[in-house]
Amino acid sequence: MNIDFMRLAIEQAREAAKNDEVPVGAVIVMGNEIIGIGQNRKEASKCAVHHAEIEAIEAACTRLDNWHLDGADIYVTLEPCAMCAGAIINSRIRHIYFGAYDKKAGCCGTLYNLPSDKRFNHRPGVEGGILAEECAALLSAFFGGKRR
Amino acid sequence: MNIDFMRLAIEQAREAAKNDEVPVGAVIVMGNEIIGIGQNRKEASKCAVHHAEIEAIEAACTRLDNWHLDGADIYVTLEPCAMCAGAIINSRIRHIYFGAYDKKAGCCGTLYNLPSDKRFNHRPGVEGGILAEECAALLSAFFGGKRR
Repeated sequence: MNIDFMRLAIEQAREAAKNDEVPVGAVIVMGNEIIGIGQNRKEASKCAVHHAEIEAIEAACTRLDNWHLDGADIYVTLEPCAMCAGAIINSRIRHIYFGAYDKKAGCCGTLYNLPSDKRFNHRPGVEGGILAEECAALLSAFFGGKRR
Repeated sequence: MNIDFMRLAIEQAREAAKNDEVPVGAVIVMGNEIIGIGQNRKEASKCAVHHAEIEAIEAACTRLDNWHLDGADIYVTLEPCAMCAGAIINSRIRHIYFGAYDKKAGCCGTLYNLPSDKRFNHRPGVEGGILAEECAALLSAFFGGKRR
């Protein structure tokens, strides 16, 4: 785990907020090289598939020209939802490092722990709570602003 | 439920098989109008995100210019995986009609029943087993051919 990559994911989340998107960012790393970055673009793309993790996975696959992302790790500011946890499993990512826990939709330890299910054909490692306060503060500020 | 839409999804699956992709197809319908179609393109796209359901959702969002697919139903030849079940929930699709059950990765009744989880903010209805034998036969023929 390299906390600098979570800081880069946080930068992506900040950019998302500037675009009036729920601030979530993701970075995919192989060795010490960044192979994919992503930010939530659900509103801009008008498609609920376009979470930060999906964008980062698509970028990494394009970069490697391969759907197997074996040995790659993902850093994401919010606990992945079912869709993103599933995409990470399907892409054979090695490890998930996430920031804030998601009480409402988190599927990497909160509501479910999909990546740890032995019935699936791949099981990424999971570590949550990295720079969690900073990641959560971005979300709180965003939704606080919306309510005002 | 209109079985003709499952037949169209099966046509998409057949096309996928011709392209040497695992044969899964999907159709999204609003009222009696098709608003999105998709087929598995994981190998061609070199990205594990590109399942039939994701392609169909992206097409439907583009068509409606909206990430909310309220009132839309999806017909898919294979039970959705975690990623696709999550994408269907996130997109607020009303109902899932699927063909064959997926013992290894199905998350709409087999390993999990994610769409029915009351903790999520949307719960699509689910009906499985529609033209299941025909949908499963396509998969068996595909994997049987691979083994030979």
